[in-house]
Amino acid sequence: MKIELASSYGFCFGVKRAIKIAENAKDAATIGPLIHNNEEINRLRQNFNVKTLEGIDELTDEKKAIIRTHGITKSDLEQLNKSGINVIDATCPFVTKPQQICEKMSNEGYDIVIFGDENHPEIKGVKSYAKGNVYVVLEEDELKNVKLNQRVAVISQTTKKIEKFMQIVSFLMLKVKEVRVFNTICNATFENQEAVDALSKRADVMIIIGGKNSSNTKQLYSIAKQNCTDSYLIENETELNKIWFNNKDLCGISAGASTPDWIIQKVIDKIENFN
Amino acid sequence: MKIELASSYGFCFGVKRAIKIAENAKDAATIGPLIHNNEEINRLRQNFNVKTLEGIDELTDEKKAIIRTHGITKSDLEQLNKSGINVIDATCPFVTKPQQICEKMSNEGYDIVIFGDENHPEIKGVKSYAKGNVYVVLEEDELKNVKLNQRVAVISQTTKKIEKFMQIVSFLMLKVKEVRVFNTICNATFENQEAVDALSKRADVMIIIGGKNSSNTKQLYSIAKQNCTDSYLIENETELNKIWFNNKDLCGISAGASTPDWIIQKVIDKIENFN
Repeated sequence: MKIELASSYGFCFGVKRAIKIAENAKDAATIGPLIHNNEEINRLRQNFNVKTLEGIDELTDEKKAIIRTHGITKSDLEQLNKSGINVIDATCPFVTKPQQICEKMSNEGYDIVIFGDENHPEIKGVKSYAKGNVYVVLEEDELKNVKLNQRVAVISQTTKKIEKFMQIVSFLMLKVKEVRVFNTICNATFENQEAVDALSKRADVMIIIGGKNSSNTKQLYSIAKQNCTDSYLIENETELNKIWFNNKDLCGISAGASTPDWIIQKVIDKIENFN
Repeated sequence: MKIELASSYGFCFGVKRAIKIAENAKDAATIGPLIHNNEEINRLRQNFNVKTLEGIDELTDEKKAIIRTHGITKSDLEQLNKSGINVIDATCPFVTKPQQICEKMSNEGYDIVIFGDENHPEIKGVKSYAKGNVYVVLEEDELKNVKLNQRVAVISQTTKKIEKFMQIVSFLMLKVKEVRVFNTICNATFENQEAVDALSKRADVMIIIGGKNSSNTKQLYSIAKQNCTDSYLIENETELNKIWFNNKDLCGISAGASTPDWIIQKVIDKIENFN
């Protein structure tokens, strides 16, 4: 069986940057998991004494607080800044952008529509920058009975699929006079999605490696699954099952933006041993 | 055979307003046909001595110039205003709006994309208000090789179909970071289109009455044709053919936004006489 990696996969710019920041910070605490990958977070704790707190309430005598790649809410940031702690911002710049857009458009009187998961930390952060009406939706239907302002600004979670974003925009075009669309889906997301789409059309079995709470990983898995029935989402090599690879010619592999190369390598090594 | 009018059809607000303006103006000249309906223009000439010029170059000793519903170019308007003639503006307010948007967005540094017919007077007028890059397209493919600014404002001809407009916006979302969409398709267009869609699904034969150079009439005809093979576009009752109505149970009728009721009535009378 041949093993082939997608032409684009794994660590994105924002994750690489955040890990470097955390490694340099040492002895710091992150507010929420720095990235959506438990194994990499364990590595940072073991090697750099970077611990993970659930929220700012858990801060006690830490000297440095790292803001996770997904960002935090505006009020949490203000509270941190007031507390006198050394705040190290590892928010992905592609997430800072929608936060800024949300604040600016809201100040200009636009209603804000965010295409994303209400419970995802990135979206909690972005949403907190709106001072007026803000609606977080995954489906255009959720806006059906909403009385919107005639000027609406639309933002997407950085890791969403463009097709659904287009549908939501089309729906809004029917409802309001001005739809100001900011395509805040990040390029790495685009590229990883396109690569997994192409590879999964050819592969007999697809392995997607990434955190099960990672939005971009779940998107990759859903794209792979559409093209290749035998697609599996795993966090690490221990979840692999030899039976998946029986009578397969091509095994495609991709990984979410928070998945470090060393985990991908362990997965490849184990699959090769099955052969 | 039953004859049924679409639930919304014919004269729109802008056309009614323009005709009233022309009737009150008397002895004036319009720059280009006031509306896209030759018969109504003949009536205005005969009853109110309102003549139709091809362009401002044809003006000689007229005292009053009427601007047509579709508007004129910015430079023509400036020249008219300078000439000292009494300028009477019958531009539909729903056309003035995209002109203003085009000018404002262009001043703010946006590239402008107009979904419309390059040769339609409305679009010539709207386009003339852009001072920077402006692209008039009917299909998203026409933008494939265009190097666009990362901020694009999109406007539609008032009489276009929303579905294609959505496709163009979706395409732009893939190309640029900000797509500022102004849905400038007018409500009357929407309503007439929806009504013809519903009626033509039930009718056995559809008659669409309107100018053959009228954009909104052509859209109505194309919608009717999709649902009902036996659809016909006519300018007046002389074009009717008795054979179209043989063995039909339901004849649906609609008319473009420039079609006066008296023409529609003549058509109905003649079809009734076929029965």
